Amino acid sequence: MKNLSILGSTGSIGCNVLKIVEMFPERFAVKALAAKRNISLLSGQIERFHPEIAIVYDESTAVDLQNMLPPGAGVEVLYGEDGYKTAAAYQSVDMVVVSFVGASGLMPTLAAIEAGKNIALANKETLVMAGEIVVKKAAVNGSKILPIDSEHSAIFQCISGNRHEDLDKIFLTASGGPFLNLPRNEFGSIKPEAALNHPTWRMGKKISVDSATLMNKGLEIIEAKHLFGISQKMIEVVIHPQSVIHSMVSFKDGTVMAQLGIPDMKGAIAYALSYPERLGLEQSLPDFVSIGALTFEKPDFEKFPCLALAYQACETDGTLPAVLNAANEAAVEAFLGKRISFLKIPEVIRGTMGRHTVIADPTLQDILRADRWAREQAQSLIRNSE
Amino acid sequence: MKNLSILGSTGSIGCNVLKIVEMFPERFAVKALAAKRNISLLSGQIERFHPEIAIVYDESTAVDLQNMLPPGAGVEVLYGEDGYKTAAAYQSVDMVVVSFVGASGLMPTLAAIEAGKNIALANKETLVMAGEIVVKKAAVNGSKILPIDSEHSAIFQCISGNRHEDLDKIFLTASGGPFLNLPRNEFGSIKPEAALNHPTWRMGKKISVDSATLMNKGLEIIEAKHLFGISQKMIEVVIHPQSVIHSMVSFKDGTVMAQLGIPDMKGAIAYALSYPERLGLEQSLPDFVSIGALTFEKPDFEKFPCLALAYQACETDGTLPAVLNAANEAAVEAFLGKRISFLKIPEVIRGTMGRHTVIADPTLQDILRADRWAREQAQSLIRNSE
Repeated sequence: MKNLSILGSTGSIGCNVLKIVEMFPERFAVKALAAKRNISLLSGQIERFHPEIAIVYDESTAVDLQNMLPPGAGVEVLYGEDGYKTAAAYQSVDMVVVSFVGASGLMPTLAAIEAGKNIALANKETLVMAGEIVVKKAAVNGSKILPIDSEHSAIFQCISGNRHEDLDKIFLTASGGPFLNLPRNEFGSIKPEAALNHPTWRMGKKISVDSATLMNKGLEIIEAKHLFGISQKMIEVVIHPQSVIHSMVSFKDGTVMAQLGIPDMKGAIAYALSYPERLGLEQSLPDFVSIGALTFEKPDFEKFPCLALAYQACETDGTLPAVLNAANEAAVEAFLGKRISFLKIPEVIRGTMGRHTVIADPTLQDILRADRWAREQAQSLIRNSE
Repeated sequence: MKNLSILGSTGSIGCNVLKIVEMFPERFAVKALAAKRNISLLSGQIERFHPEIAIVYDESTAVDLQNMLPPGAGVEVLYGEDGYKTAAAYQSVDMVVVSFVGASGLMPTLAAIEAGKNIALANKETLVMAGEIVVKKAAVNGSKILPIDSEHSAIFQCISGNRHEDLDKIFLTASGGPFLNLPRNEFGSIKPEAALNHPTWRMGKKISVDSATLMNKGLEIIEAKHLFGISQKMIEVVIHPQSVIHSMVSFKDGTVMAQLGIPDMKGAIAYALSYPERLGLEQSLPDFVSIGALTFEKPDFEKFPCLALAYQACETDGTLPAVLNAANEAAVEAFLGKRISFLKIPEVIRGTMGRHTVIADPTLQDILRADRWAREQAQSLIRNSE
């Protein structure tokens, strides 16, 4: 029986984690559920999965949640950063699922690692911002970090059974997003609704926009660098519109291993939860004959400048990836709020990165400071462009 | 340092094995070389690799070889079945590469297994004829059987790092051979030269014809069943003309793992020789962007009846796979000798199988008797059709 703490249980990943818990009640128990403010969904999850603690964003939300729960629900309601840290380090928990969106995943992940928990990591920003610190701390504390991102789960599965020194290259596949074939001169009029309409994957809003700009792939490059301990020069992005190959790894003997599946997050989530075993998910397999062809293209760095910005941040390293990430979060939020256009997203990020004085080998404080600074910078660039 | 005995050193696989030995002299040494009659090539290999023993088919060939070698070559020349068995069980040898063509691989493989050697197996007929006996004997003697066939090497690599009970299905890919798109009504006029002209792989004559009839894929189904301990119902053949995906395996969580590479036998050979390490082969990787698309089709069982015959033999089991194999060897030889047409190959096999009284759970003697019987039957069917 594996005891889980789920940070971000009301999001797309969190709900899928709970579906798997529901399928395998003899394997998984939920000890802690944490969300931000979606208490109508959270209260239902509490009644269904009986966690010992539940955590929300602030005190007033905690009071509202408490009032929603039936008397004798038997759950302790906590809130705020301390509450999230309690859920991350909760004593009876074996594995912490980190599926918070954005930079908010970092501190709870560090708390979980300090408590020696294994991590099922869906929050790529944690590694983007502070990959070196997180990976080192995990090694010291004996925490395993198991990726939930479908690409990184694929890479992890391709590497499994091989020696790290035989690794040659990672092919990170990208669907190309909803605008792969849209001419560049129409990018100016892209509306949020169109950006949220991903061709192959159903995901949250932030990651859907990141997929449309290819920043999602850029963040994944940085994530992969830390997770698999390799240079960004060994990571190549390949556009693969069918999203059937979730990623590939080549080895020094010329072999390429690929992991494939239908586009459904449950496979990657279940693998992180049950590794090295596999669960009988009753997923359908890709039907290769009906699919007919798996196709590949080069990414267009001019149409999708976010990808080049991410490579640049990855290569420079230090505090620059955290700045890239923070500026991107601010820009995506402004785009979704219709304050800036789609084309402005990379401009805000580039502008913020250009104003940043990079600190090499940063401390956690340096990173958090760079994150705050970048958000302010980005906001001012967003205001100026309104 | 791994000491090798290479049974079939002058064939296409044998020569590739020696290329790898040449690339990694600090890892591999050749103790025994065995061939049939190609002594001009064999004598050169002896001078280059200095084996302790060399084996040829018969006494007169052995005398000719001895005369070709310079005085003081320091190699003992043996011949015949006893000679091959000596090479298979040679004391200082760690791994026996079995790359004999056809049924002749069986007895030396069994001798090697009885001597507790690990086997790098390129000869699929060994497992087709006597898979159950060979696999059981290997388990008892602690011999590992490492496949050299590119498809089975791919499957082996896809399974690596996974539990056998999580295995769901094997997708055996097939290029489709040179006649994939030839209309069925032109099959009557197929000449040996056309059948030998494989679109993606350079191989020996027998296996090239087997690829053209798809019998090669049929034999691989039977081979995979024994090698991976699964039912033929779990093995699906998928036509994949680019031969980039060498095969795939699905697991019960809906994951599919695939092994890919350029069509070159060196990858699979090197993996069998160096498993679980990988050697730096300086092979080029598949260029996914230039390839553009990997395509998939269903096999056409009417155009390629050999595939259905193999499924039938695999399902019936007992002595029938040995009969299928023997009749196929006779028919392919007759086709290459222009004694029968391409369309007659499956007819000879079907006719022989139809006349056979299957023995369930056969002994080795039963299998060898069925093999001889099937060759005679097939010859008489070939004579009748001339």
